Amino acid sequence: MLDSLFKPRSVALIGASTKELSIGNVIIKNLQRFNFKGPIYPINPKAPEIRGIKAYPTIFDVPGDIDVAHIVIPPEQVPQAVEDCGKKGVKNIIINTAGFKEMGAHGEALQDDFVARGKKYGVRLFGPNCQGIINTDPEFNAYCDFTFTYPEPGHISIVAQSGGVGAFIMQNFFDIGVGMRMYASNGNACDISIPEIMRYWGNDEGTRVIVLYIESVDDPKNFMEIAREVAAKKPILAMSAGRTAEGAKAATSHTGGLAGGKSMELIFKKTGILSFTDAQEMCQAAVAFASQPIPKGNRVGMITNTGGPAIIATDELVDGGLEIPPLSQEAEEKLKLTMFASASINNPIDVVATAGAPQFRSALDVMMDEEQIDSVYINFVTPPFVDCPAVAREFAEVSLQRRKPIVCNYMTDKAQWTETSAILKSGGIPCYEFPGTAAKALAALSRYSKIKSADNGKVQSFDNIHPETVSAIISIAKSEGREMLNAEEAYNILEAYGIPFAQWTTAENLADAMVASENIGFPLVLKADSPEIIHKSDSGGVAVNLTSPVALSSAINKMKANFTGTNLKYFLQKYYAGGKELIIGAKAESGLGHIIVFGMGGIFVEVLKDVSFGLTPISDYESKEMINSIKLAPILHGIRGQKGVATGLLAEIIERISALVTNHPEIQELDLNPVLAFETFAVAVDARIKIK
Amino acid sequence: MLDSLFKPRSVALIGASTKELSIGNVIIKNLQRFNFKGPIYPINPKAPEIRGIKAYPTIFDVPGDIDVAHIVIPPEQVPQAVEDCGKKGVKNIIINTAGFKEMGAHGEALQDDFVARGKKYGVRLFGPNCQGIINTDPEFNAYCDFTFTYPEPGHISIVAQSGGVGAFIMQNFFDIGVGMRMYASNGNACDISIPEIMRYWGNDEGTRVIVLYIESVDDPKNFMEIAREVAAKKPILAMSAGRTAEGAKAATSHTGGLAGGKSMELIFKKTGILSFTDAQEMCQAAVAFASQPIPKGNRVGMITNTGGPAIIATDELVDGGLEIPPLSQEAEEKLKLTMFASASINNPIDVVATAGAPQFRSALDVMMDEEQIDSVYINFVTPPFVDCPAVAREFAEVSLQRRKPIVCNYMTDKAQWTETSAILKSGGIPCYEFPGTAAKALAALSRYSKIKSADNGKVQSFDNIHPETVSAIISIAKSEGREMLNAEEAYNILEAYGIPFAQWTTAENLADAMVASENIGFPLVLKADSPEIIHKSDSGGVAVNLTSPVALSSAINKMKANFTGTNLKYFLQKYYAGGKELIIGAKAESGLGHIIVFGMGGIFVEVLKDVSFGLTPISDYESKEMINSIKLAPILHGIRGQKGVATGLLAEIIERISALVTNHPEIQELDLNPVLAFETFAVAVDARIKIK
Repeated sequence: MLDSLFKPRSVALIGASTKELSIGNVIIKNLQRFNFKGPIYPINPKAPEIRGIKAYPTIFDVPGDIDVAHIVIPPEQVPQAVEDCGKKGVKNIIINTAGFKEMGAHGEALQDDFVARGKKYGVRLFGPNCQGIINTDPEFNAYCDFTFTYPEPGHISIVAQSGGVGAFIMQNFFDIGVGMRMYASNGNACDISIPEIMRYWGNDEGTRVIVLYIESVDDPKNFMEIAREVAAKKPILAMSAGRTAEGAKAATSHTGGLAGGKSMELIFKKTGILSFTDAQEMCQAAVAFASQPIPKGNRVGMITNTGGPAIIATDELVDGGLEIPPLSQEAEEKLKLTMFASASINNPIDVVATAGAPQFRSALDVMMDEEQIDSVYINFVTPPFVDCPAVAREFAEVSLQRRKPIVCNYMTDKAQWTETSAILKSGGIPCYEFPGTAAKALAALSRYSKIKSADNGKVQSFDNIHPETVSAIISIAKSEGREMLNAEEAYNILEAYGIPFAQWTTAENLADAMVASENIGFPLVLKADSPEIIHKSDSGGVAVNLTSPVALSSAINKMKANFTGTNLKYFLQKYYAGGKELIIGAKAESGLGHIIVFGMGGIFVEVLKDVSFGLTPISDYESKEMINSIKLAPILHGIRGQKGVATGLLAEIIERISALVTNHPEIQELDLNPVLAFETFAVAVDARIKIK
Repeated sequence: MLDSLFKPRSVALIGASTKELSIGNVIIKNLQRFNFKGPIYPINPKAPEIRGIKAYPTIFDVPGDIDVAHIVIPPEQVPQAVEDCGKKGVKNIIINTAGFKEMGAHGEALQDDFVARGKKYGVRLFGPNCQGIINTDPEFNAYCDFTFTYPEPGHISIVAQSGGVGAFIMQNFFDIGVGMRMYASNGNACDISIPEIMRYWGNDEGTRVIVLYIESVDDPKNFMEIAREVAAKKPILAMSAGRTAEGAKAATSHTGGLAGGKSMELIFKKTGILSFTDAQEMCQAAVAFASQPIPKGNRVGMITNTGGPAIIATDELVDGGLEIPPLSQEAEEKLKLTMFASASINNPIDVVATAGAPQFRSALDVMMDEEQIDSVYINFVTPPFVDCPAVAREFAEVSLQRRKPIVCNYMTDKAQWTETSAILKSGGIPCYEFPGTAAKALAALSRYSKIKSADNGKVQSFDNIHPETVSAIISIAKSEGREMLNAEEAYNILEAYGIPFAQWTTAENLADAMVASENIGFPLVLKADSPEIIHKSDSGGVAVNLTSPVALSSAINKMKANFTGTNLKYFLQKYYAGGKELIIGAKAESGLGHIIVFGMGGIFVEVLKDVSFGLTPISDYESKEMINSIKLAPILHGIRGQKGVATGLLAEIIERISALVTNHPEIQELDLNPVLAFETFAVAVDARIKIK
């Protein structure tokens, strides 16, 4: 439990300073300004008082118990200070000082030293190289941080691996007049971790939504376990960085651990975290989550008192995956009685600029009553000739019923419309300044609703698999020091996991090949099988679509003549003409499992980057979703009278590969490229497996 | 010239009212609050004074000249009021009253009436159904509008077809502390039009950038001519609405004229207007355009004093098409002398949180001097322990040198950092609250730089074309009341414009067909040619890849047997195997010319919507750009050892089609679907032309 950290009854500051612009002064100033409810103990060997508060020469001189001690002294002095805190019985230490693990070996040694000391005394450590924590609960008013934003109480809690990002997120909520619950930025996270903080907030009633910025995770499994647990209780809105190659490079150099876009995105998805790529969009969504209920679906009712913004909003809502369905006949009849003659009474309901409280209220009530409406989007420009506070009162009243979520594109000068703005705020109406921002917030609510209601399926367990065969193959390769498995090993592994592949064999000579061809059946592909022949296709080492024994023997004789002098053997495989060319692959991600990739092969994967990803273990729902989420999926399902392919079988292949790499984590990379898919079957015709 | 409208020396208000919440009162209040420099003449038959200003019973009682008269009385009374204004010699009338053309036939008649009267007296009309104009020039302080935002003077001028959109754009600049030059929202635009206003601002020195919101244009050619002229002088940032099908429907019902996304986007592109789909992004870009120079290219230098936001910014900049190149050895050497030990001295330069003015200045100077840097992105979080005003002074000083554009993600509480904020503002530093918003503004500057430096090519004139042939074909079809041309007519039109197609002929019988086959050459496609046979391919009416006279005669005999009893003729066409399947089409857009479409055909156009558009006349540059801008373009150029197709020839086909439809505007639709493209040639194998 992190109660003594986030709800401290007393705070000490080792390194307190009389110098105005120093961290050792700023933290005391922040505690004072924020009206911290407990005693503050500045620790300074010389100064008798700092910012009007009695200072103590050492931590041992402090008369009372200490829940949180900040350390802001130079790195070399930190281990001893931690030792002292341990002796004093301090419960938590926030080490703001930087210059530890993030600065190389010497710093890391220092960090290891004080971590050990902390452990010895059972004192919890926060940081180092961090900002600290904030709790706006008026019972504590804890501002144990050197940042500069003084948030109002609210229901959003923010945890950020980067203090800079945490600071601008917190500042944004402040700027738009939205409160915050707790804040944490824990820098190097030598002890208290982001998952631990998330779990604590999961149990904090005052926190309705968690906003997370994270660049990397050290222990993905632990993160995922806790994230899943917390996400089941309340929305977690999260953003990582490094979705571009350049960004990923920057993220990797900024932090250790598993960093960068794709992995974090998959972790978010797998654990039920709502993922964002834009920080502003995440903040704006959080505002809606903090006060509005979750919609049942994606159907929006729009109410507007201005034309142009309604058109823009329509574009934005549709872009965000929302629908704007027509209203019922009954609703229209009701509206005809209440709306002005110039109003437009379907969806959007354009109440027109002169509309007052009765018109807006009627429109809102209709939207709340309509079965086929899940949420309400309002464009509200404040005409100087309308009683806007009265309109706002209706919005607030309906919002507080919490029947369906409402967002409002509130177009006004808040400095003039103070009363109206205050009423909207008291009603918990999330207000935005652009149609696009309001629409995106609503889209996020709807996206979350979809996540929550989705049945994520079941990870199938397959009976007809032979893990022991695979283990044996891998053992042999390992014992021989090989990382790449040969074709025979790779196909045997596929066979052991019931993954279909094109039948094949090797042959020493023509006679062998003729026998083999009878087993496999025509047509056939013939490949020269010799380590000496590198570019097989270019040098005449491949012959496809051999339809008869005559064709096969002629091809073999040709190759023999072509490659005289080499130790030539032959690789024969069943030849399949046509079929859709797909790729299915797996790649180990340290500490996380494997990332499975699916896509249409050949030039499409190259030109269109049309692939989907999943994180093992892949459920039956996820495998289908992976198939359906590539852009070319309609081609797999059949289009324009063309038959589709056996997507059910493809899904099974994905799941079987997931089972294979999960059971055998030694597999680092697996590529089936291509898998050929037909109407009733699919086969891998090339397999490459790399182990560690 | 619109001087007397935007720089009025006197304003009258017909319909002035003592009622606080009425438009007739609000407009006077606005003029007063904004400190309008000339006399205000309220016109009211009863009240002796309104808001402390002497009122006049009629316009004729006003002692002086009137530059602008507002009309806010009911629609029926407007024509007479316009007549009176005309007699009085009023120069401009802003008709705020609604209820005219936008409300149907009766309103349109009223509007036509007062337009005629205005014309009679030479008085210019603005509106009706509009907000009005604002000019912040302190010499005038003209607030002839009923909105509520009181902008500071600045360099951005805003014109919006929708008052609601205009209002929230203006409010946004106000909220972020950025000034405005002039504002206009002209509603129904019965006389003074948006292009006329744009042209006026094109010549206004105080306007550095024009922000345009437009839903539809009545006279696209006129709009384009003026837009091109103005865009050559200063940046126009524009947004339309209706990019989704739902949005386009809403836009069409909201306005008349040519509305919706695709056409407006093409108009913007063709005239050099910088197009946006997001209003906030447009506003934020405008702020940068108003104070910063245009970059020479897309290479950004980043300076940051915080880690996380730099990673996010990297993603956002790269997403926006910008590059973050490494710095020169020389720059690194310079930075080593000035930066703190913990700083990171490439690109980004992480000056670290403790950096002060000297570090930031040195980093800025290096970026300004680096040849391979075109613009500078700054992440500036205000640490409480740094002299931030001193840092800001360096930013301002360098910004005012106007060497390269600077944008700043300024992460602070502006209420506390007032001095720092004021210095940044005085230096014209565009400040943003998120890495994403700052990056997008910089991306817009870079996008504009690309537009300005692009050579848009030349519209080719083709010698070997025969317009008279096409005119004759169209005349005949018209005289016969046909809209769809038959195959012979369509192919003859292609031939007349030098557009290659697969050779074809029709044959009455087997003997004819045998002769024809000698002319065309094998292989051939044979189609049953009879109006009675609808689904040719399904009913055995198509035979492809006939490689010999024997195959042809056998196919004909089979069809004869198949379709006994019908008046069977034969259509023979050269058969091409392989080739990339493309579509090239043209569609007339009223008042605008034709929109040309290009894409890969077959399932791809259907599944991927992978098409590009251009507006006639298409230049040699534009035709290539159309080809290169589809996602599958790499396939056309050749990929993975596969040969590409004759893209030069495809470009010529696009240009020839452009010439064809431009010379013959009767052509409503033209579809070449497919065009088969090969390494050295391309041919249309099906053509459909619809005329009017």
